[in-house]
Amino acid sequence: MTLKTVRMALLFDFYGQLLTPRQQEFFALYYGDDLSLGEIAEHYGVSRQAVYDILRRSESALEAYDGKLRLVERELAQHRLLAEIESDLQKVIEMVQAGADAPAIVDLLSQTRRKLATASKVDEGRRDDV
Amino acid sequence: MTLKTVRMALLFDFYGQLLTPRQQEFFALYYGDDLSLGEIAEHYGVSRQAVYDILRRSESALEAYDGKLRLVERELAQHRLLAEIESDLQKVIEMVQAGADAPAIVDLLSQTRRKLATASKVDEGRRDDV
Repeated sequence: MTLKTVRMALLFDFYGQLLTPRQQEFFALYYGDDLSLGEIAEHYGVSRQAVYDILRRSESALEAYDGKLRLVERELAQHRLLAEIESDLQKVIEMVQAGADAPAIVDLLSQTRRKLATASKVDEGRRDDV
Repeated sequence: MTLKTVRMALLFDFYGQLLTPRQQEFFALYYGDDLSLGEIAEHYGVSRQAVYDILRRSESALEAYDGKLRLVERELAQHRLLAEIESDLQKVIEMVQAGADAPAIVDLLSQTRRKLATASKVDEGRRDDV
């Protein structure tokens, strides 16, 4: 997968439902099932150019939605935070199993709780507008 | 705040950027600043009915976006999970401070990690489509 394909898959995951049914179909065939423009054109009995235009318009629409709602960026930030919390918990388990001192364990757990509070806030970031 | 106001604030947080500038203005004044229809109408030199219509159309548009993207539902589910994980961590801290047995602590931490994995999955739920 190229970087563009990955980005388009992400955008489609978030905003695909806002495209027209035809846009969704072409998009899924091209980016999901890896069909060529020519194959999609033949299957639908339209020109290769028509398929190309619909795909370009779909990409622009998805980018425009993300320019406004920024869900991809927020998801990646959230994902990074949850991965960090997961790694903290793994470390706490190892400390407990190794019989580490209670204050050291509690200290790490307190840091983890603060990260968790940040994760809840990422969720609520857009709440500031109203 | 009425339940409807809370819901509208949530929807606006998620999808407000997709409304027209005028819709966003009226919406923020009515639901955010608690101005009356009459006050908004007077301020903008339009009829009370016009303000009413724009607000109703904005509400429908926001509900339509959420009907397709379901961000509110997903956010609430995510929020519940993070709150549960937070409460687990609090409990682990208490267990560690009370000198509980390592296996009991590790057991709870393992459950918490599984919940965390679910939280990451909620984030990626929409990834299944492509």
